[in-house]
Amino acid sequence: MNIVEIIQKKRDGRPLSAAELRYTVDGYLSGAVADYQASAFCMAVWFNGMNDDELSAFTEAMRLSGDTLDLSPLGITVDKHSTGGVADTVSLIALPIAAACGCRIAKMSGRGLGFTGGTLDKLESIPGFRTRLSEKEFFGTVEKYGFSIIGQTGELAPADKKFYALRDVTATVDSIPLIASSIMSKKLACGADALVLDVKTGNGAFMKTPEAAHKLAGALTRIGRLAGKRTAALVTDMNQPLGTAVGNAVEVAEAVSVLRSAAPGRLTELSLRIAAEMVFRSQKAASIEEAQKAAAAALESGRACRTLAAVITAQGGDAGIIDDLSRLPHPAHRLTVCAGEAGFLTAVETEEIGRTAMMLGAGRLRKEDGIDPAAGLVLSKKIGDRIEKGEPIAELMSAREAVLPEAAARLKKALTVGEAPVSAPPLIYQTEES
Amino acid sequence: MNIVEIIQKKRDGRPLSAAELRYTVDGYLSGAVADYQASAFCMAVWFNGMNDDELSAFTEAMRLSGDTLDLSPLGITVDKHSTGGVADTVSLIALPIAAACGCRIAKMSGRGLGFTGGTLDKLESIPGFRTRLSEKEFFGTVEKYGFSIIGQTGELAPADKKFYALRDVTATVDSIPLIASSIMSKKLACGADALVLDVKTGNGAFMKTPEAAHKLAGALTRIGRLAGKRTAALVTDMNQPLGTAVGNAVEVAEAVSVLRSAAPGRLTELSLRIAAEMVFRSQKAASIEEAQKAAAAALESGRACRTLAAVITAQGGDAGIIDDLSRLPHPAHRLTVCAGEAGFLTAVETEEIGRTAMMLGAGRLRKEDGIDPAAGLVLSKKIGDRIEKGEPIAELMSAREAVLPEAAARLKKALTVGEAPVSAPPLIYQTEES
Repeated sequence: MNIVEIIQKKRDGRPLSAAELRYTVDGYLSGAVADYQASAFCMAVWFNGMNDDELSAFTEAMRLSGDTLDLSPLGITVDKHSTGGVADTVSLIALPIAAACGCRIAKMSGRGLGFTGGTLDKLESIPGFRTRLSEKEFFGTVEKYGFSIIGQTGELAPADKKFYALRDVTATVDSIPLIASSIMSKKLACGADALVLDVKTGNGAFMKTPEAAHKLAGALTRIGRLAGKRTAALVTDMNQPLGTAVGNAVEVAEAVSVLRSAAPGRLTELSLRIAAEMVFRSQKAASIEEAQKAAAAALESGRACRTLAAVITAQGGDAGIIDDLSRLPHPAHRLTVCAGEAGFLTAVETEEIGRTAMMLGAGRLRKEDGIDPAAGLVLSKKIGDRIEKGEPIAELMSAREAVLPEAAARLKKALTVGEAPVSAPPLIYQTEES
Repeated sequence: MNIVEIIQKKRDGRPLSAAELRYTVDGYLSGAVADYQASAFCMAVWFNGMNDDELSAFTEAMRLSGDTLDLSPLGITVDKHSTGGVADTVSLIALPIAAACGCRIAKMSGRGLGFTGGTLDKLESIPGFRTRLSEKEFFGTVEKYGFSIIGQTGELAPADKKFYALRDVTATVDSIPLIASSIMSKKLACGADALVLDVKTGNGAFMKTPEAAHKLAGALTRIGRLAGKRTAALVTDMNQPLGTAVGNAVEVAEAVSVLRSAAPGRLTELSLRIAAEMVFRSQKAASIEEAQKAAAAALESGRACRTLAAVITAQGGDAGIIDDLSRLPHPAHRLTVCAGEAGFLTAVETEEIGRTAMMLGAGRLRKEDGIDPAAGLVLSKKIGDRIEKGEPIAELMSAREAVLPEAAARLKKALTVGEAPVSAPPLIYQTEES
């Protein structure tokens, strides 16, 4: 094997063999392939793409570069992944629903970075909640209550980590095969039998257009299928925050409210749909329609809410938050933002909303940064909603009083208020399945 | 300036500004741009090319990365460059001819590498010949005799050197804009006012097809024009060795024979044409036809031969070789190769002929390797020639007797002898001028 010949082959549009891709991945991790060769390889992939066999082999090589989880003692398991968005609290709602329908979900979750939040940060805002469990505790919680969420253990797909850091500084991030193999190498390392992927699209997502998101969803499901996993990928809207809350404790509060009240809305609707996909893909229902009915029943009956309470208790958290949200961390300072003009909300710069929450302390710029669990915001308006002049439209929360006025200005700038009503963007653009 | 944005711009097919290209080149040389970024940049250029303004700015940035020569004290100067071939002894013949026609040529030449020879190695096979001169000696020789050839002084285009080493290990060598800017950054650093470029094409050249060579010739002349130089580029054949001798002393001997006898042949014809281009481009003749007449007269009158003798003497060499070729280094061992079958020479694997000469000791694999000045071969047949069974077709020379049989077998394998006569390939495919 010769890496220069491998790069040249890819550059010339000839497909690489599984052995050549394995050599590239293993060689890069070991140092036999230099970073300048790996970056030339990534750029050649950016231009020429990968066919399904290459995609599958490259993903598999990255998956096998680190630790892998064996979930087989748990029976048929299912996992869920979102490509990241703003006010995307789906996991905290869909997992309890799916678990209440008989799914088994042993989920390793990540922290937020940049303008997108992370489930782990959100859960850690629950007093006492532990995201580090022994394998025995982790598996035991799944067996008893159907799901458990912990932080990453071991080293998953270290080759992907190295490739990702390189892509970031060589203008090769936005390549569908490289994004898809990166996501799937880590997801497949987590060992679930079925996967439900939520590919966000819009101005608050990495995939700006439904077309790009559609391509990614296709690549993800093809990798899943070739790895022998039942995989579904939904392309869903991120042209406005999904829920109303952006932050950590504030998102937990919104998730609990949905589970308690089953109040309709975009977050509820998507959570039910994702839960139903999880139920169907892990064979706990004979059809997607049956799975949707089961999910709705689990939510409306309060079973999903009780499942979340049980898991919080099992992981050392204060389940009292379910009935008393005031037990969640409080921000030192709040500011209510009122509308400066009347009209209809016609557009939201979603990424800016995420960045406003970061500014308040809810997110981190670098992995090493800490976050403020109580910081964040609630934006109570959705695209198409009527707004009256002077009406409260958002509430900001932070430990730092001084940032509130600037954050309020930033938030307002991210909202477009027009004279004519507009219809809301679609919630789900399409579903890909393997 | 941000290198990631620069790479992305190039990747997306948007032209880079002169400032962005300068930043890339200077940054790479200083270390501000990492090698993995430079390789991603090169791969993006491989795919998307460069327009003329980019080509010119990139070349200029590389030229200015090191030392540059000021030849203005010499008046209008002209330089010549070949992209490299086998039995390409043109410089040793064309330079004395052009000098005898009034040209001023202050040439810095390189050593051979791989299967192609280098003029410096050839000259150093002349006993006493010095390729290191002070600037005063160098300029003085040009002023007196019209030309001088020395080894590279100072550091020419170090950024190009760094890029070239990187391209070699990242599958980005064969990019017309990168090749053209590499050649021209060094040539322009040498300071001549006019340039004649010999772009070789065929199985003994880097450019395998006339189309690729044509593209390179076009890029070279466009860079020359934008740099304000009168530039001509000829695309010439390298589907067989140009002359008959491949090596160092043996090529000097062939050059001297051509200068002494003016015997016709492909080497003579191309040398006259290149010399005429040099004469015309440096304004020593009013038309190319007039320049061709002057070149022919300089050769046939013996003035060119006397010019070479004078320069050899001026540079400390033994000009006695002109009348007595036996004063050149002798090989310890010779082997005459005879034809195994009768027929016509229909094809030559030219690169293999070059590699056979290397094997005999005439060339080097790595820059650090030494060479044997007396080693090499003479292949007395050209494509289209009749060959009789048992007829001597080549002579091999080496210090190492043991390699001769293997070299003879290699040489014979590189020749195709067919039953029907074929016509010789064209010598000059086309001329590009700025």
